[in-house]
Amino acid sequence: MHRSRLAGFIIDCQTPDLPAAARFWGRALGLASLGADDERYIRLDGREHGLAIEVQSVDHPSRVHLDIEADDVEAEVARLEALGARRIEKIRTWWVLEAPTGQRFCVVQAKAPLAGRPGTQTWPAP
Amino acid sequence: MHRSRLAGFIIDCQTPDLPAAARFWGRALGLASLGADDERYIRLDGREHGLAIEVQSVDHPSRVHLDIEADDVEAEVARLEALGARRIEKIRTWWVLEAPTGQRFCVVQAKAPLAGRPGTQTWPAP
Repeated sequence: MHRSRLAGFIIDCQTPDLPAAARFWGRALGLASLGADDERYIRLDGREHGLAIEVQSVDHPSRVHLDIEADDVEAEVARLEALGARRIEKIRTWWVLEAPTGQRFCVVQAKAPLAGRPGTQTWPAP
Repeated sequence: MHRSRLAGFIIDCQTPDLPAAARFWGRALGLASLGADDERYIRLDGREHGLAIEVQSVDHPSRVHLDIEADDVEAEVARLEALGARRIEKIRTWWVLEAPTGQRFCVVQAKAPLAGRPGTQTWPAP
């Protein structure tokens, strides 16, 4: 048994100026900046939505990708593979997967217990 | 004075089988289907996040795009242009814009009053 939920979305920006990208997206979406996690990530305030929203500096073309968080990353990746997703790459503690429809998305380790948080599901589904 | 908010995100799928795409994404994200809006859209239940989440059939490569809703689309598009966004195309009642960082996103007409809804901002900012 494990739990997972939609953690949020990441606005991947192919840009040499991450602060400017985060300023645009924060103002566009009306979300305050919560500051930089490190030189590659600036967090926007998605707490009203119960989501983590981040602007990320990337080397690949700009896009938006979804993050799923799980209390057991390997079990969650196996569940998603059974649905048709494909493992692309493990990066530190998280997996990059590709959906059957082609979008890349990530499965990350939940940093806090998932029970009771918005959208949390228990697998196998009861 | 007008209001806008992050409305949600659309999972654009280049697929001949939209129901299968929506089944994958609903199961992957743990979100129930709310049914088809028309033959191009299937809604997932983003109410716990205060967001509209939809799976869309598209002709362009698959991606994820963000939607902003506004009670005055033209004023919101003008605000976003001043931030550096670029108008791409008007489709019926909504505008497709491109961010300075390259992502396409949409500004749609809010179907319900925005005051008091999660993430709503008033422009010009008070």
